[in-house]
Parts: sequence; structure tokens; C-alpha cells
Amino acid sequence: MGVSLKDIAERAGVSLATVSNVVNGYRPVGESTRQRVQQAIDELGYTPNLSARHLRRGRTGLIALAIPELTNPYFAELADVAIREAAGLGYTLLMENTAGERTEELTLLDGAQRHIIDGLILSPVAIGRNEVLGRRAQLPLVLIGEGVYDVPYDHIAIDNVAASRTATAHLVALGRRRIAFVGAPPWDDRQSAHLRIRGYREALVEAGMPFDLRLVAPTAQFGRTDGERAMRHLLTLDEPPDAVLAYNDLTAIGALRALARAGVRVPDDVAVAGIDDIEEGRFSNPTLTTIAPDKREIGRLAVRRLVARIEGDARPPAHEQPTFRLVERESSGSTR
Amino acid sequence: MGVSLKDIAERAGVSLATVSNVVNGYRPVGESTRQRVQQAIDELGYTPNLSARHLRRGRTGLIALAIPELTNPYFAELADVAIREAAGLGYTLLMENTAGERTEELTLLDGAQRHIIDGLILSPVAIGRNEVLGRRAQLPLVLIGEGVYDVPYDHIAIDNVAASRTATAHLVALGRRRIAFVGAPPWDDRQSAHLRIRGYREALVEAGMPFDLRLVAPTAQFGRTDGERAMRHLLTLDEPPDAVLAYNDLTAIGALRALARAGVRVPDDVAVAGIDDIEEGRFSNPTLTTIAPDKREIGRLAVRRLVARIEGDARPPAHEQPTFRLVERESSGSTR
Repeated sequence: MGVSLKDIAERAGVSLATVSNVVNGYRPVGESTRQRVQQAIDELGYTPNLSARHLRRGRTGLIALAIPELTNPYFAELADVAIREAAGLGYTLLMENTAGERTEELTLLDGAQRHIIDGLILSPVAIGRNEVLGRRAQLPLVLIGEGVYDVPYDHIAIDNVAASRTATAHLVALGRRRIAFVGAPPWDDRQSAHLRIRGYREALVEAGMPFDLRLVAPTAQFGRTDGERAMRHLLTLDEPPDAVLAYNDLTAIGALRALARAGVRVPDDVAVAGIDDIEEGRFSNPTLTTIAPDKREIGRLAVRRLVARIEGDARPPAHEQPTFRLVERESSGSTR
Repeated sequence: MGVSLKDIAERAGVSLATVSNVVNGYRPVGESTRQRVQQAIDELGYTPNLSARHLRRGRTGLIALAIPELTNPYFAELADVAIREAAGLGYTLLMENTAGERTEELTLLDGAQRHIIDGLILSPVAIGRNEVLGRRAQLPLVLIGEGVYDVPYDHIAIDNVAASRTATAHLVALGRRRIAFVGAPPWDDRQSAHLRIRGYREALVEAGMPFDLRLVAPTAQFGRTDGERAMRHLLTLDEPPDAVLAYNDLTAIGALRALARAGVRVPDDVAVAGIDDIEEGRFSNPTLTTIAPDKREIGRLAVRRLVARIEGDARPPAHEQPTFRLVERESSGSTR
């Protein structure tokens, strides 16, 4: 220890303010200057004490991002953005895996870690609106995702109805007439899949096509295995689908696998689309058409909102809707 | 607050010890009993204060797992195991993303978070043996992965030379004669890819085949994009390969994509194998032959070792080698 920011400033030949900007991330610093400061830090063996300025304010400088599925790349990609955003604001982001379990979500909601973290970003899956409304803890909270709506907390989520309506309309525009939905959950108002099924239904109705429950395949979870199993089931129908919208990219990739094993051509016989735009879908064979939510914006807004709350922002909670876009790839007919 | 374990025991009609076992995970509890206790916890709104018993011992009950790539499913799958193992031992595992960056790894190594965590599991990528040997921090440390060998810390890693030798020998046994390696790093002794290339080379030599540097394709990183690019390069050779061993599953999946786009049949024209056994490879088209390290054992051992050190184990550091196995799938000719 014993190495101060001043030592680094002298070694790097820059001002103390510049070193502070590099170390604390308050303000952007030019790349060559940043490298010079970094070199001085490495040479002197300085260990940044990120939490000193937080501790002075009664904070730890730690925030948590609680996600339901560590092994779903969507959340890993989102966490990647959030970690960088938090670092830029001088906070360290920890990841918590709730595994979509009710007890885990409730424990976090009620502030079990309030002695450690300054605030929480939560993507609820197993708990509903009432649990969030009944929360007693004061720890700043930002919600992301589609689990819970209309609660007095900042909430960041894309318009899920519009997203699946857009994907379904794309399949309709290809001339498909038996469009299935893979990944239906229990019929529960608060679940995003309901919103996604609503968008799917709206697009069908708009196109003058029937909403046929036989083409809506329920799944236990939303992983690759679930999508594969549901697709296998759809292929056993007397009139199998000629297109599939999946709840997310993982279930879509499971569906692609079932189709490949059954010797069904994609997109010729069955077109497939997912939602999430995970990197895997850019490399699958065929590549996967999907709805790309603006993950960068979701991660950025969630962290910025939370930090603002931690630092005293008392404005009314806001519901922000980052944008999304349709990405056409091979699974719905595009050549790349 | 105000809800105690005793309140829960009364409500659930079980002993205090049973409640403690459920809450602290000291000992397994029968499922029906566990559910009864859980219900009482939910009804009473009890918030487990996991850290109370740690704080009495001057600990926080938090350990960190620092991984180089949050978006590499191998690490997400490993973290999933480690989080459960830690919970079973009464610890909360936090994930840190070093992004494979030297400064991040050094900061962690030197105990920047020692006021927060009781110990660290690190998978080093950018730092080498000397940096680890020069470490001054006393925070318990367990190393995983292939980055650094022969240091006085517990180290958990599979035998990487044997793993890639096994995969290469499998491709040799298929009758392939021009076997490429995708994912070569800079030639640096401490890098695992060197160990993996060594195993690849040993298998070739054993089969009486030449080690041809033209068939060893370097990559900047070890992601899907890197594998795709390297494979495209190999396909431009006068005599392209008839088989590929990739550094890991992600680069192998990139290679599969390049082969599909080029209209090259897998495994007929080119057989492909990876290392890691990530779930994605069980669903790719074709499915991916791979080396499956015992991830459960790696995660289990890393956490157990670390917790033992935190709780006073002073035995000499050990290097443990969990097992691995070859998983044959479609990309090397198996029919499933």
C-alpha cells in the first residue's frame, strides 16, 4: 500500500484530477493519457480503494443485478453492459442468480443484503405485482424485464406486445398461414409470455388469421430443451405449422434442432423467429431471425436509474421502454 | 424484522435445528420438511441474515468467483455449480468479470475487495506465474483453469494436454489426415492453449503424422467470431483440412458456421471437435463433438478448497485434476 493518487500523477506526469478521473471513472480521459496513467498504476502497484469515497457517504459502492438464469446468454450479455456502466459511475456491480426461485426473489426484494449493497436491479420471474407492492425494505430498487408491471419503482422493459406483434407480422408477410407459438407459460396476467402471446394474437387477427390454440405450445421453462420438445410436439399435428415464433432465442434454437433432426427444411418448410438477439443466433445453422431489444440501453438505463436513486433522486418512478428492432436472418428466408 | 428461527420452528412444527439446517444449508433436510419450513418462512416474512454467524467470526460470508468472460457459457455453467456449492456451505458467491484484463486481475489478486469478501476463486488469463508468485495479499485464493501453473495456491484444472490429445486421437481414428487446430494464442508457455496445442501435437506425432504449422490457425480471442474467421482462412489453403480441433466449443461453433456458409459438409468433408461441452453444442446443427470437463467437480472442489482455507485449513496447497471425457456427436460422425 502507501501508494497515493499523487504518486501516480507524478509518475505519469499528469494532474491529480486526471488520475482521479481514470481511477474513479468520473469523466472520460483520452486513450493515450489513460494508458500512461494505467502504466504508472501497474508500475507502482497501486490498489484502487474504490469504496473509500462511498464509505464516507455511508455507502458500500456495491450494487447488485439479480437475474433469473445465469446460463441464459441474454442475461450474461445484459450483465456485461451493466457492469461497464456501473464501473463508469464508480460502482461495482455484483451478480446474483435467483434461478427464478420465489424465495430467492423475495429475500432480495426484502433487502437481505442491505448491509452490503446500496441498491438492487431485479428481473422478477416467480414473484408478482402484489409481492412487489407489499415490499417493506427501503433499499433502492429498479425492475427490469417483463415480470411485473405497474408498481411504484423505476421499471425498464421493451414493449413486449409490440415486439412479438412485429415478429409475427414478419412471418405473416412471408406468406405463412399456420404460425405457431413456442413457449407458452401458465395463463397468468403478469407473465411476459402472456404479453408476447398477446402480440402474436394481435398480429394474427390483424391479418385475418385464426388464433388456433393447437398451435400454441406450452413449455415448462424457456431453455433449448423446452423449445426442442415443444417443436417435436408441433410436428406431430395433422397440420403442422409452416412458421414458428418462439418465446425467446433459446427456445427457438431448440426448435431449430428439432426441425433439423426431423429433416424439415428451415425456412423452406418452416420459418423460425425468436426474441432476444443473443450471439448464438448469429452463428446457428441456419442463422436465427429475431427481435433485438436494445440491451445496451436497458443495461445503461437500469444502472443510471439505480445510481440516481442511491444518490438521492426523489422524482416519481418512471417506466422506460427501450427500443427493439427486427433482425431478419436465414431462418425466415434472408440469405444472411 | 423480529421474526426468529424459533418463530419459524413453531409455525412449521419442527425443531430449531431443522430450521437452521434449512436456512443455513448445514445439512440436507427431507423435501416435505424443507417445504414446510419454507412455507413458514414465506408466511412470516422472515429474512435470513446469512451473515450473522460469519460476522461473529470476523467474516462477511461472501466469496468471489472471478471469470474472464461473462458471456462464455462455460463460465456461466461453472458459476451455476459454484453458487449452489457455496450456498450449501453457508456462503454467498459473487461473480466478478475481469474481462481477461490485466489490471482487473491484478486488482483482484492484490485483494482490492478484501473488506468485502472472505476469499477469491480466480481464473487468470492476462497475468502469469510471476504476478501470482509476487502477490502480497493474504486473502485466501484458489486458482482454476489453465492460465497459471506451479504456484503455492490450491489449483483446480483438468489435464489440458491429455484432453486435446484425446480429442485429436479421436479425429485420427476417424481416418482424418489433415487435422487443423483453431484458436492458437501467442506462443507463451503459461497459456493453456499452448497445453492444448501440445496435446494436439503429441497425438499427431503418435499417429506418425506431421505437425504442420500452416494448419494451426491463430485467433485474437476465443469466441465464435474468432473461430469463424480462422476457419474461413483454413478453407483458403491449397490443401484445406479434413478435420478441425478447436480451442473451445465457442470457436468450434464459429468454425461450424464458416463451414456451413462455404457449403462444406460436416462431418463428411471436415470433422469438427471442441473442448468445454457447453449446452449450445448439444443443440447446434450438426451437434458438436467435444471434451467434457467435469464442471460439477471443478466448481465443487474450487468452492470447498476456498471455504476450507477461509475456515483455517493450513495444509500445503494442492493441484487437483478433475476428470474429462470425450463426447462424440454428429460433427465427428456420430448419428446423435
